[in-house]
Amino acid sequence: MPDFIVTPWEVSGEIDYEQIIKEFGIEPIDEKLLFYIKEITKEIHPFLRRKIFFAHRDFKWILDEYEKGNPFYLYTGRGPSGNVHLGHVMPWLFTKWLQDKFDVELWFQLTDDEKFLFNQSLTYEEAYKYSYDNALDIIALGFDPKKTYLFSDIDLSGTLYRNALKIAKKITFSTIKATFGLDNSANIGQIFYTSIQTVPAIIKSIIDEKNVPCLIPHAVDQDPHFRLSRDVLPKLGYYKPASIQCIFLPSLQQGGKMSASIETTAIFTQDSPKDVKKKVNNAFTGGQANAKLQRELGGDPSVCSVFKYHFMLFTLDDDEIRNIESRCRGGDLLCGECKNNLIQKINSFLKKHQEEREKAKDKLDSFLIKEKIDLKAMIREKLKRL
Amino acid sequence: MPDFIVTPWEVSGEIDYEQIIKEFGIEPIDEKLLFYIKEITKEIHPFLRRKIFFAHRDFKWILDEYEKGNPFYLYTGRGPSGNVHLGHVMPWLFTKWLQDKFDVELWFQLTDDEKFLFNQSLTYEEAYKYSYDNALDIIALGFDPKKTYLFSDIDLSGTLYRNALKIAKKITFSTIKATFGLDNSANIGQIFYTSIQTVPAIIKSIIDEKNVPCLIPHAVDQDPHFRLSRDVLPKLGYYKPASIQCIFLPSLQQGGKMSASIETTAIFTQDSPKDVKKKVNNAFTGGQANAKLQRELGGDPSVCSVFKYHFMLFTLDDDEIRNIESRCRGGDLLCGECKNNLIQKINSFLKKHQEEREKAKDKLDSFLIKEKIDLKAMIREKLKRL
Repeated sequence: MPDFIVTPWEVSGEIDYEQIIKEFGIEPIDEKLLFYIKEITKEIHPFLRRKIFFAHRDFKWILDEYEKGNPFYLYTGRGPSGNVHLGHVMPWLFTKWLQDKFDVELWFQLTDDEKFLFNQSLTYEEAYKYSYDNALDIIALGFDPKKTYLFSDIDLSGTLYRNALKIAKKITFSTIKATFGLDNSANIGQIFYTSIQTVPAIIKSIIDEKNVPCLIPHAVDQDPHFRLSRDVLPKLGYYKPASIQCIFLPSLQQGGKMSASIETTAIFTQDSPKDVKKKVNNAFTGGQANAKLQRELGGDPSVCSVFKYHFMLFTLDDDEIRNIESRCRGGDLLCGECKNNLIQKINSFLKKHQEEREKAKDKLDSFLIKEKIDLKAMIREKLKRL
Repeated sequence: MPDFIVTPWEVSGEIDYEQIIKEFGIEPIDEKLLFYIKEITKEIHPFLRRKIFFAHRDFKWILDEYEKGNPFYLYTGRGPSGNVHLGHVMPWLFTKWLQDKFDVELWFQLTDDEKFLFNQSLTYEEAYKYSYDNALDIIALGFDPKKTYLFSDIDLSGTLYRNALKIAKKITFSTIKATFGLDNSANIGQIFYTSIQTVPAIIKSIIDEKNVPCLIPHAVDQDPHFRLSRDVLPKLGYYKPASIQCIFLPSLQQGGKMSASIETTAIFTQDSPKDVKKKVNNAFTGGQANAKLQRELGGDPSVCSVFKYHFMLFTLDDDEIRNIESRCRGGDLLCGECKNNLIQKINSFLKKHQEEREKAKDKLDSFLIKEKIDLKAMIREKLKRL
C-alpha cells in the first residue's frame, strides 16, 4: 500500500509530490520554463516561484502558441459538495492571475453532476444548490465578467452530454479501471463522468468552429481526467489540453490536505474572525512544548501548518517569509505571535472576500451561462404548432 | 452456448420464445388477460390474438389503473441506425392501435445516442440524420399529433442527462454486466446508456409532477433495459413501467429476424414494387422443390417466411389465413400464387405508406419536441447582461 492516495475523489496521507510527478508522468516546472513565463508576464507569481504550482503538461506549447498569436483559453472547475475553503481558493487566485496576465477567456465548471454521483449522501438538489453557493466565492475573487463563463454541469447538461458522447465512445471501462481505480461496484454515472469533464477542454473550439488551445490550472488530483482527455481528443481532431498543476494546501491539523468534511482542518470562506482565531490557535505547529524550550531550541517550520499557510497563501513577500522562517528556527518567534500574524492576515482576506461575496449575489447573471430547458414550455410550443 | 441470442444489441439464431419468457421472467399474455383487454377495447387486435404481442409485465395493473380513472401513457422507441423496414413497423402499428383505443399520449424516442455508441462505423451525424429520416416513417403511420411527442435523444439531451443521473447512481457496472453481458471492453457511453433509456418511462411523471403509469410496447429484445428501470424507479419514488412485448418479424431468408444490415432479408418502407417483388420471389418458403411435388405432398407453412408475413402483418383476417394455410398444406396453393398475393398486399401497404411518408415531411414540426441549445446565442445573451 502507498503512504498516500491521490485520485480525483480521494486525497489522503503524506503526499510525495516527486513520486506523483513520476507516477502521473507530468513535468516539473523548471527554471527555464519560469524564465519563459516571466518574459511574457513580466513578473512571476509567488505560487510559481514557490513551486506551489509545480508541474504541467505542455505549458511550454501554450506559451509558444501564445507568442505566435494563437492565444489559449483557461478552463478550471470546482466540485460543489460543500462550502468553499482556502484550499479551493488557492488555485483560483492563480487562475485569476493567468487571466489578468494573458487577458484570456476562462470557462469555470461546477461539477454538481460529479459530486452527486460520487457522494452517496449528497442529493441532486443539494449538489445543484452548492453550485450556486460556490459560484459566489468564485465571482468574489474578481474574475473578469466579460471573459469568464461560469456554469453548472446540470445547467449545461445538453451541451455536455451530446459532446461527451463522442469522447465516451473512445474510452473503455478497462481504461477507467486503470486510470481511476473504479471497479465493478462503481455506478454507471461515475464510470461515464470523465467524458463530461473533458467537454470544457474543447468548448471554445466547438463555439469558434476551429481549434483553440486550452490551459487547465488545477490541483494535481484531477490529472487522471485530463490524461484521458489528452489521449482521446486528438482522435477527434482537437488539440490535447495543456495543464498547470498545484499541490494541496495542507490541513491545519497534522498530515493530509485541508478537508471540507473535517471542519477543524480547514478555514472556510464564510468563517467568522472568531472561527479563524480558534482554528489557527488550535493548529498543529512545529513549535516546542513551551515558550522556554522554543526560545532554547527553536521551532521547525518544515512540519508546521501555520508556517505552510504563511508560505502558501498569506505571506507571499519573500523577505517577510524568510524572516518568519529564520526567527522561528532561531527561537526568536514564538507560535503565539506567528499565529496572531496569520489570523490577522486571514481575517483581513476574509473580510474583503465576504464583502465581495455579498456583492457577487447581484453579479451571478453576468457570469453564469445556462441552457433554458423547460419541458412544459416545449410542450406548449409543440401544441401551438398543430 | 445457446442456439439464439436476444439482447438489445444483437438478435440472432432460432429464437425460442417460451425459453425467453422463462429467462427474462416476463409473463405470457393469457386468455384471461385478452378477455380483460377486450372488455375495454371492444375488439382484440390480431397481434394479440395471434400472440405476436405475446408477453408483458404489469399490463393487468395498467388496465386496472385505467379502469380506476388513472390513465397511462405510452412510450416506445426506435434505434435510428438505418432505413426502417417492416419488422420495425409492426410494433408501431400496434402502438397506434393502443393510442387509438385508449386515447392516450405517446412519447416516441429516437435513440441516436445509443446507435452512435453501439455501432462502431456509424458517425454521430449519421445517427442524428437517421433520427429525422426514421421520424417520417413513424409519422406516416398516423399517430395523433395532438397526443404524440417524438424526440431524438440528442435533441433532448439536457432533459435526458440530468434525469438519467439519478437513475445511473442506482446502477453498478456489475448489474450492467449481468443484465446486458457488456464487459470491460465496452465503452463508457454504452455502459451509461441504459439510464438514458429509462428517462422516458418517467417523463410524464416529471412534467405532470405526479406519478403517471407508463406502458411500453416493444420488441422483446429491449426487456433488459426496462427490467432495470423497474428495479430502479421505485427507489426514486416512481411507478415501475409496464410493458407489452412482441416477437420479431422473421427474415425473408431462412432463420433469424429481419435485419437492416442484410438488405435481402428485409423489406424496407422505401422499397419499390420491383424490390418487393424480387425479395418475396427470392424468399425462403416451406414449398416443395417443384409444382408437381407441391401438389402431391403439400407445403409446410410453419417454416415458410412468406406464410409468416401473411400471418404476422398482411393477412390479418382469420378466415383468410386459415384458408391460405390449409390450401398450402393440401397442395392446392402453390408458392407462386401465395407470393403474388403477399407482394400485392405489401405493395399496396407501401404505396400508401410512401405517400404518407412524403406528407410527413411537412408534419415534423407538429410531432417533434427538442431543446433549443445554441452556445453562441447563450454567449451573446450573457455578454448582453454585463
